[in-house]
Amino acid sequence: DLPFVLISGPCQIESRDHALFMADALAKSATDAGVPFIFKSSFDKANRTSVSGKRGVGIDAGLAILAEVKAKLGCPVLTDIHGPEQVDAAAQAVDILQIPAFLCRQTDLLIAAGKTGAVINVKKGQFLAPWDMAAVAQKVASTGNERILLTERGASFGYNTLVSDMRALPVMAETGYPVVFDATHSVQQPGGLGSASGGQRDYAPLLARSAVAAGVAAIFAEAHEDPDNAPSDGPVMLKLDWVGPMLKQLKAIDRVVKG
Amino acid sequence: DLPFVLISGPCQIESRDHALFMADALAKSATDAGVPFIFKSSFDKANRTSVSGKRGVGIDAGLAILAEVKAKLGCPVLTDIHGPEQVDAAAQAVDILQIPAFLCRQTDLLIAAGKTGAVINVKKGQFLAPWDMAAVAQKVASTGNERILLTERGASFGYNTLVSDMRALPVMAETGYPVVFDATHSVQQPGGLGSASGGQRDYAPLLARSAVAAGVAAIFAEAHEDPDNAPSDGPVMLKLDWVGPMLKQLKAIDRVVKG
Amino acid sequence: DLPFVLISGPCQIESRDHALFMADALAKSATDAGVPFIFKSSFDKANRTSVSGKRGVGIDAGLAILAEVKAKLGCPVLTDIHGPEQVDAAAQAVDILQIPAFLCRQTDLLIAAGKTGAVINVKKGQFLAPWDMAAVAQKVASTGNERILLTERGASFGYNTLVSDMRALPVMAETGYPVVFDATHSVQQPGGLGSASGGQRDYAPLLARSAVAAGVAAIFAEAHEDPDNAPSDGPVMLKLDWVGPMLKQLKAIDRVVKG
Amino acid sequence: DLPFVLISGPCQIESRDHALFMADALAKSATDAGVPFIFKSSFDKANRTSVSGKRGVGIDAGLAILAEVKAKLGCPVLTDIHGPEQVDAAAQAVDILQIPAFLCRQTDLLIAAGKTGAVINVKKGQFLAPWDMAAVAQKVASTGNERILLTERGASFGYNTLVSDMRALPVMAETGYPVVFDATHSVQQPGGLGSASGGQRDYAPLLARSAVAAGVAAIFAEAHEDPDNAPSDGPVMLKLDWVGPMLKQLKAIDRVVKG
Repeated sequence: DLPFVLISGPCQIESRDHALFMADALAKSATDAGVPFIFKSSFDKANRTSVSGKRGVGIDAGLAILAEVKAKLGCPVLTDIHGPEQVDAAAQAVDILQIPAFLCRQTDLLIAAGKTGAVINVKKGQFLAPWDMAAVAQKVASTGNERILLTERGASFGYNTLVSDMRALPVMAETGYPVVFDATHSVQQPGGLGSASGGQRDYAPLLARSAVAAGVAAIFAEAHEDPDNAPSDGPVMLKLDWVGPMLKQLKAIDRVVKG
Repeated sequence: DLPFVLISGPCQIESRDHALFMADALAKSATDAGVPFIFKSSFDKANRTSVSGKRGVGIDAGLAILAEVKAKLGCPVLTDIHGPEQVDAAAQAVDILQIPAFLCRQTDLLIAAGKTGAVINVKKGQFLAPWDMAAVAQKVASTGNERILLTERGASFGYNTLVSDMRALPVMAETGYPVVFDATHSVQQPGGLGSASGGQRDYAPLLARSAVAAGVAAIFAEAHEDPDNAPSDGPVMLKLDWVGPMLKQLKAIDRVVKG
Repeated sequence: DLPFVLISGPCQIESRDHALFMADALAKSATDAGVPFIFKSSFDKANRTSVSGKRGVGIDAGLAILAEVKAKLGCPVLTDIHGPEQVDAAAQAVDILQIPAFLCRQTDLLIAAGKTGAVINVKKGQFLAPWDMAAVAQKVASTGNERILLTERGASFGYNTLVSDMRALPVMAETGYPVVFDATHSVQQPGGLGSASGGQRDYAPLLARSAVAAGVAAIFAEAHEDPDNAPSDGPVMLKLDWVGPMLKQLKAIDRVVKG
Repeated sequence: DLPFVLISGPCQIESRDHALFMADALAKSATDAGVPFIFKSSFDKANRTSVSGKRGVGIDAGLAILAEVKAKLGCPVLTDIHGPEQVDAAAQAVDILQIPAFLCRQTDLLIAAGKTGAVINVKKGQFLAPWDMAAVAQKVASTGNERILLTERGASFGYNTLVSDMRALPVMAETGYPVVFDATHSVQQPGGLGSASGGQRDYAPLLARSAVAAGVAAIFAEAHEDPDNAPSDGPVMLKLDWVGPMLKQLKAIDRVVKG
């Protein structure tokens, strides 16, 4: 029942300067609201809807930027990894390794990640029930690493739509691991734009409020100063200036719920 | 952005004494929490899972009891109706006529109910999208009666399961009509017990919190002093002594959200 | 394991002449394919998406037309009923009373229909699992009337979409009652056109083939000589000249499956 | 509109002798039914529900066995690959590289596989709409390799359940690539047994019939002489002696549909 944490950043690392700018701005909003902050950004978007979607700066450049953000801002840093060969380098640069939702059942990746000793944040696959995540977490825990986070990011609901079942949060919390609610990917409309995923950014703060009211350890929400022109996840990312007011509301709800 | 209202009562009218007991207890909890209260109970359960499920006290006895609750407690009273032939008698006894979810597309019932001039609460069918409710409300409004409430009570999600999409609340609110979240039917597991519907009472307060955090005009939640032995909806009804503490939390979240 | 039957006709009775024209044309196609034929048409569309959708010719005119079709063509006739007060008149005019999907849990309607002694075709609600239909059928059977048909017409799948789970057919057949597959309502997109339901007529013959291959007692498929200008269900009804070729394919598949 | 092909084999390679035994038995059944045959088996099960699920014989042993099956039986051979580092070795041993459903959006894997020039069978993710597969196929085709198959294996439908939407088959066929229906994974109940996936083997032949009636290029169906004791996918695999009779029915339906 600790106060909730914010995990935020731009979907992908666009440049060193952009990452530092975003991390600085988000850290300030979080500090203002009294919310601990973890910076998130990806060095590679490995499963874009289209082959022509922008992939990112790559692992070497990306990890260097993330390490610099961590050093300069003093905040923990999270990034996602896509294959067992990436985990060691990533674990040296960042605090939290994230397993993408589509890959949450890939045993080798979970075990390789777990063995680094880093905190492992596993996103729940859109195709899984919340209780299925116990077996997923167990794959990581089998390495002796119990520093596990589990993230809800929506469940498949018909075609091109996700739905957020708030009951998933307490169900996953029964594992004993902290539960994160990903407010921006939960409003994704997978494949909804034909060659890209659509989204409903406007509903992300609402779902974040609902999740905090249900009770979570952290809110994950990507943000961008100009999401409509971002290279990925534009339709779902929060506008940067929404973050501060949203956090204040979330903080007040969190206090009510956790007493 | 008025403070939220509680709509509560036992699923069905079991007896005059029980209805008065429940109404009194719920009204006290609501007053304590500073929440306006509307009493709800059914005189007939017209669509039980099984033919042997208890139906209720019937329309004449039921409406008389509801009128007495209204007179004694001084609170508005709501009941559900199942055919056009019931609307006039019901509208004389109660303040709000409720259209059951399965019947939310039955034009004759909506129009007959609308013509009484009573407030009409239409539950969204488990088979409808939230935006589909605009055409449903329009059927009532075509009678000149704009005193309409729209209630979310879960959407079909695979078999024997409902899911509460919190985005449905603002979508329905775009109609301009107040939106209610039904926290207890939303945790129903339709047909989940074979010859009866199952449910997850424990998650109802959580969904109520999430809905209030999303922003609603009212929370609908059935309650009972001994739900495990209630003649209907036992698996989903709140225990009576949960109501007071829940309302205090909801009230605090409502204040945060509505500023 | 009897050969499959066709239940077909225009969604609603548009006029005496149109009903006779359609019944005659469909009966000829069925005879050509060696398929027994039941004529279906509605006297009232009681749950249109919009209040301005055309309702139909009404019960008195409609039942008279259906009785005339039955007399002239010599085929059994089916129509749907919407309230207990309609069942007696309808049962005098037609052979099969159909319970609409939204109303499949309304106990009074099921029992009133059952008591007429007519064959009762209950459509499975879009919100029900196939195994839930056993309790529905039991409501009818509680009247002593075991002449029951159960119809699959799609299950809710996200918003504005239905999906046909072919496993539902054998599951419902475990009740011992003949199972019908409704190929045209299964391609409905409920509410998909805003103030009307959309549909995917082109996929109806495909789903009919799949259902016959799974094994069914009857195929239900509405048809019209000019569906794009029909007053209801235009987007899903078969074009009249599709029926003959479709039946020949279905007949051949039925023979393979039933040996 | 070529006659349909069978893709079958035991879920995983258990041993050289078992693979040869199964391939021989299945090839005989296929020849008897006049159906071309492709042998399928996995050298590694990379995404088991539980960390303690059996993984398989490994890539070196597995590819050697598959090459021997191909040489001895003279049939094409298919296996699934899980990372870009596996594609070259696999493409030397087998004819068709299969991309698992969970990995169907992993750009690097699709491109690496495509570059081998082998036939690539991409399984549709349980979280994708059928029209989303056009962008997936395009990732492979961007390598210049147009030898692509697309496989339907069920879509997420609530929790722990998949549903087979037969309309997905023609939708995917609009890409111009041959479409395969996976009849055994489509009856999987993901995570349904807690630490393993459940399944409904009994419905697999029914779904295969429905899919052939809808029109497909191939039926994929895993089989085993003793599925209840198989190391993986036991609840869904066909019993070996079901295969022959099923193929004869499917062949007859295929003839009806393809004229």
